[in-house]
This record gives sequence, structure tokens and C-alpha cells, in this order.
Amino acid sequence: MTFKASVLTLYPEMFPGALGLSLAGRALEAGTWSLEAIQIRDFATDKHRTVDDTPAGGGAGMVMRADVLARAIDHASSPGDARPRLLMSPRGKPLTQARVRELAVGPGAVILCGRFEGVDQRLIEARGLEEVSIGDFILSGGEPAALVLLDAVVRLLPGVMGNAVSGEEESFENGLLEHPHYTRPQEFEGRAIPEVLTSGNHARIAKWRRSESERLTGERRPDLLTAPPGLPRK
Amino acid sequence: MTFKASVLTLYPEMFPGALGLSLAGRALEAGTWSLEAIQIRDFATDKHRTVDDTPAGGGAGMVMRADVLARAIDHASSPGDARPRLLMSPRGKPLTQARVRELAVGPGAVILCGRFEGVDQRLIEARGLEEVSIGDFILSGGEPAALVLLDAVVRLLPGVMGNAVSGEEESFENGLLEHPHYTRPQEFEGRAIPEVLTSGNHARIAKWRRSESERLTGERRPDLLTAPPGLPRK
Repeated sequence: MTFKASVLTLYPEMFPGALGLSLAGRALEAGTWSLEAIQIRDFATDKHRTVDDTPAGGGAGMVMRADVLARAIDHASSPGDARPRLLMSPRGKPLTQARVRELAVGPGAVILCGRFEGVDQRLIEARGLEEVSIGDFILSGGEPAALVLLDAVVRLLPGVMGNAVSGEEESFENGLLEHPHYTRPQEFEGRAIPEVLTSGNHARIAKWRRSESERLTGERRPDLLTAPPGLPRK
Repeated sequence: MTFKASVLTLYPEMFPGALGLSLAGRALEAGTWSLEAIQIRDFATDKHRTVDDTPAGGGAGMVMRADVLARAIDHASSPGDARPRLLMSPRGKPLTQARVRELAVGPGAVILCGRFEGVDQRLIEARGLEEVSIGDFILSGGEPAALVLLDAVVRLLPGVMGNAVSGEEESFENGLLEHPHYTRPQEFEGRAIPEVLTSGNHARIAKWRRSESERLTGERRPDLLTAPPGLPRK
């Protein structure tokens, strides 16, 4: 089954962008997923193709109009469409690898990229949009966030990653940050690969990696140890 | 002063990507910032231009070699270069708007985009790389994360945003999620704009917005209320 992504944006030319290359690009060509970028402006009704207006109550910036966005969403997503409707927004629920995995086993996603100050709240409610945040920082619009979300999802689609084992040993998949990596050369600027890794003792190696993962997570992300955001601990 | 971004990547064709359009693209053309995408493979020394090797200690995937990456970084960043050297990595410190602001007032950034299982740990230590994560999810590589980081930084550079006030009223700038937005039409599918916003009473409007911000933050992100990650509360 093809994962179908419909992105609603004022900048359709930003897509596929980075998703047209590498793993995601090959999967796009192979038909593992599909991507349509829909120009929101096409759903405006005035001759200037206006999509925004000044905020009710005053203040800086512009707000995207509910009526224009509703027409764009209804065009992308008919009533029987089972795909979740996402709004990339810093007010949203932080994206986790668990949510990425859920999306990857689903039929796709309709993704609205906000711009300006934001989107009329009535549209969010009337169309049941799920607000998704990729982090506690502000972007020029939802487009870079949509690229990130799709990249995370697409790499998990069947057949996209060369080595399926790879996906399971990574950061967050077990609620911990990943252990350090080393490869040849054996010595780099006077620094050697830790002896345990060249010992050939698989039990010692596994123990060292687990211990390093726990140490790193404790040092850098104690929040993951106490309350992993939506992630099962293994 | 021009903000200078040097991105080390196996996919230089992913840049400027979305950063070549809209706000960031206009600022790039105007010379407010500069972007060079450097092909890491150009710093390999064998005829196959190999940049990775199998992980010491065994396991899935490949690890990027310290020696090749060191040559690429030293090419991009001479000893007197004051720019921070960032490695986009899910093991890194989560990116915050406070760090984005710091970067935006600095001279630029050297950004290494990891691929495969990761980067040889000795390179990270020897070149003093700051590991930066944009969230608790796994990407196909550091490139989409670098696009996000640069988008967040560039919009804060002088002259990039049309309305400077805009930048100060947003989510996270005061440690809270932003209040809901509304604009015309006055009625949308039977839903009206909240009366307070059309009252013309600025004090009531400001109070309502603050209260909505606090309510949303409490509902969706209680973590921001108890321990804002690196953000000053106003």
C-alpha cells in the first residue's frame, strides 16, 4: 500500500525538496509513497488570491483564513479519507518516534503548513486538525517541519531502509540515546578505538554499549529516564 | 555582518532547498546570510570516495569515518573561525528558541549532517562538535534538521522579518504557547470569533490572550510551566 502525503502550502515548490533525494527520493520514485503539494492560494476567491487577513483583536502579523483553508483541506481530503490531518505548529504536541511509527503504518497524512502568525482557530476545530510540533523553536512556516516529519515517516516504510535491523537499534527506539560509534582507522590523531570494541567479546561489547547509552542519556537527557514522552521502555 | 553557514553533507544538492525560497531565500539573495554546501565525499582519499566503514565491535549499518570528516571540517573552518561547529544528531541537546537566538547574533555556523548509524566519536571530541537535536525522532540524515535549524536562525537575522514585533509575541518567546488566532470572516460554518476579540477593549483582549496562552500551555505542555528548557520566563 502506498503511503499518500498531501501537503497544503503557500510554497509547493519547496516539495519534494530534500525528500526527492537519497532514501526518500528513491522510495518516491519506486512508488512506496506519493507526495502532492497543493497550493493553498488556489482556493482563495478574490482576484488577489488572498489567504490571510489581520488578526481579530489586533496585533502584529496576519492570520490564515478559515474559509480558504477549509476549501483546500476539503479538496485534498474527501469525507471517506482515513488519513490524519496534521497542522505543523509550535503549539502542537511534540512529535515522537512513537507517533512517527504510527503514521508510517497508516494510509498517509494530510499536512497543513501554517505561515504568518498562525491559522484561524475555528478551522483547526472544524476540520479536526492534529497540531504537531517538531520542537520548541519557531520556523518561518510549517514547510521545513513537514519535510522533517515526512522524512522520519518515509524511512520506516517497508523496503526503504536497506537494513531493517538498523531501525531498531537507534536512539529513542528503546527510550535511550544511542551509544557512541567508532570505525576505522584504529587510531585517529592519537585517539584509539576503545579496547572493548576490538576485543571480539560480544557480551562485553553489548554490555559496554548499553552502559554508554545509559550514561549518555543520564547526562544529556535525564527527562527521558524519568518520563519518556510516549515511548515504551524496553 | 553576514551570517555564514557552511553545511557538510553527502547531499549538497539538498541545499538551499526550502531555504532558497520565501523569507530565507530573499535574505540569501540580499546577502543577509550565505550558505555553502560542502560535499564530504570530496575529502575521501580512495578512488571509491569512501566516507564510512563498518562499526567497531560489530552491528548493523555504517559509521562515518573520523579522518575523512576531520579533513572536511578543517577545510570549512580554519583555526581562527569563531563559528560554532554543530553536529545534527538525535543524541544532541534539544534545540531551543534561546539557542536559536544565540546563533542568530553570532557569525554563523559550521553544520555537519550525520548519515548512516552515526559519526566516529573521536571526531566529535577532537573537533569539539556541539551535538544538536531537533527532536526525539530519527531522520534519514542530518540534512532536514540542518534546514530546520537554519530556517529558525535566518528569520531572526536583521531585516529578514517584515515586522520585528512579530518575533516577540510568538510561542516560546515568553515560555508559553501562543494564544489562538482568529481573522475574518466574522462567522465561519456557524462559528463566531470570540466576542472579546471584537470588543475593541485592548486590556480585555490582552488579558484573554494571556489567559488562553496559559490554559493551552497547561493542557498541552505542562513541562514548559515547570521547567522551561533554557528559556527565561517573562
